[in-house]
Amino acid sequence: MKAVLQSYVDGFAAGDPAAVAGLFADDAVIEDPVGHPPVQGRAAIDEFYANAVGAGTKLTLDTPIRGSHGSRAAMAFTVEVPAMGIRIRAIDVLTFGEDGKVTRMEAFWGPDDIEQ
Amino acid sequence: MKAVLQSYVDGFAAGDPAAVAGLFADDAVIEDPVGHPPVQGRAAIDEFYANAVGAGTKLTLDTPIRGSHGSRAAMAFTVEVPAMGIRIRAIDVLTFGEDGKVTRMEAFWGPDDIEQ
Repeated sequence: MKAVLQSYVDGFAAGDPAAVAGLFADDAVIEDPVGHPPVQGRAAIDEFYANAVGAGTKLTLDTPIRGSHGSRAAMAFTVEVPAMGIRIRAIDVLTFGEDGKVTRMEAFWGPDDIEQ
Repeated sequence: MKAVLQSYVDGFAAGDPAAVAGLFADDAVIEDPVGHPPVQGRAAIDEFYANAVGAGTKLTLDTPIRGSHGSRAAMAFTVEVPAMGIRIRAIDVLTFGEDGKVTRMEAFWGPDDIEQ
């Protein structure tokens, strides 16, 4: 699971939205941020990462990725969004299916986790 | 929510298990680590934190606490367990009820997040 989370970070670094979206199952759900309406399904996920990666967004891990004793893993990182001139401090929790694809992503960040 | 997460860390620092357990609703569920059978209910929660805080466990935040746009918040931290001579790198996700009490805690750490 940790390798997939690292691939998620690396896909942003490489500017490769297909590499990031390809980590997800076709019927995966993305809740980013937690509390907003989710993005669901292949077309919506592809569009979500085309926009995010296309905007030049980069992720930097703040501390090592965490695993678990189940099918979920988590990471704390800082998001640089140069197009908006902001940084967002986030924690993402990813849930995995038996085939190793991500079935759910939940991104924890709120209004006061954004720095201008 | 962030103040509650900080109080959780502070309760460990103060060696005050009642302060930590008191952040939780009476019917709250603790999954620590994610993938292990949960601890549920007032008596089990009180015992869980009596043991954890009583062992001299201390938490140090690795990066600022994250909020969300919903009823959940998350933090990445390092757990020092002096009685066992280990450190655990963890991410906790807490879910809140309308009364501000924690209704669920999920702790993300796996076997390879432990340092001797």
